Amino acid sequence: MIDNKLKKGIRVIDDFPKKGISYKDITPLFLDVDLSNQIIDGFVECLVDFKIDAIAGIESRGFIYGMALANRLRVPFIPIRKKGKLPFNTLSQDYELEYGKAAIEIHTDAIQHGWNVVIHDDLLATGGTANAAAKLVSRLGANVFAFAFIVELAFLKGSIPLTEHTNNIISLTKYQS
Amino acid sequence: MIDNKLKKGIRVIDDFPKKGISYKDITPLFLDVDLSNQIIDGFVECLVDFKIDAIAGIESRGFIYGMALANRLRVPFIPIRKKGKLPFNTLSQDYELEYGKAAIEIHTDAIQHGWNVVIHDDLLATGGTANAAAKLVSRLGANVFAFAFIVELAFLKGSIPLTEHTNNIISLTKYQS
Repeated sequence: MIDNKLKKGIRVIDDFPKKGISYKDITPLFLDVDLSNQIIDGFVECLVDFKIDAIAGIESRGFIYGMALANRLRVPFIPIRKKGKLPFNTLSQDYELEYGKAAIEIHTDAIQHGWNVVIHDDLLATGGTANAAAKLVSRLGANVFAFAFIVELAFLKGSIPLTEHTNNIISLTKYQS
Repeated sequence: MIDNKLKKGIRVIDDFPKKGISYKDITPLFLDVDLSNQIIDGFVECLVDFKIDAIAGIESRGFIYGMALANRLRVPFIPIRKKGKLPFNTLSQDYELEYGKAAIEIHTDAIQHGWNVVIHDDLLATGGTANAAAKLVSRLGANVFAFAFIVELAFLKGSIPLTEHTNNIISLTKYQS
């Protein structure tokens, strides 16, 4: 049911950020108080029966519902940021972009060994960033318990690399094209 | 009381991002579930008696508690983003940096005329970004009801330009140096 509501709320913008891309704009969801609540509830329902120790949100759209979700589950929130943004001791992970490379970072003291961590971002495309985030969590000795996305662009098959970490891949709505 | 707890939780990092800057790192607050809750409660207490129509959060650290606060107040959340990140029709506002200029943007359909909007960011320094955000809100015909910061670097006097918009400037903790 939330799947249909999300599809109604998401704005599809053709040719953004470049020609040929059909961009899924989730910002209208933020304006809908009930739907935003249902997004958080949707994640909570999938996670509440398990021992979750933290939510890690990927900069910057993974910050938006990330803390709200962590707050609801009463667990810590861990920001995973673009290179150079975190001021303390960091671990860095490179990943491939369509053209070139990027890197994301985590504070080394943000995660404890053995924690069950849920990695959250708004949208799963090719999975490059989420996979890099999972590597950071693993390298710090924690367990990637699940990924939690609002939207999955299923035709890009981004969930395949993520199954290396866990089979718990939550997507509240999926697009097949 | 929250003031002391915040000062204990915030990590001061000298010479970041460059020599001479004493950086206030708020990321440890995100790991403290009770304190994160108290941050949201602290804002809610200041706002709950008024007619608030939306929380506008400034990218990217203003996203973290922004949606959680909006969710608690049951009002829409509006992201104000760096130039080029919002995919739909946007309004843009330049502002001065120490060296050069930057711009932030808002979706033109994210705000309705006459709304009472609270602008949230994690930290008030010189006020340049918050002032630009307030200009965007005003230019769309809405009212800047309040600013809500976790930390104010009071010695930088960033609240002065903001009083042009409103005298409601909430800072949960202030540093005098």
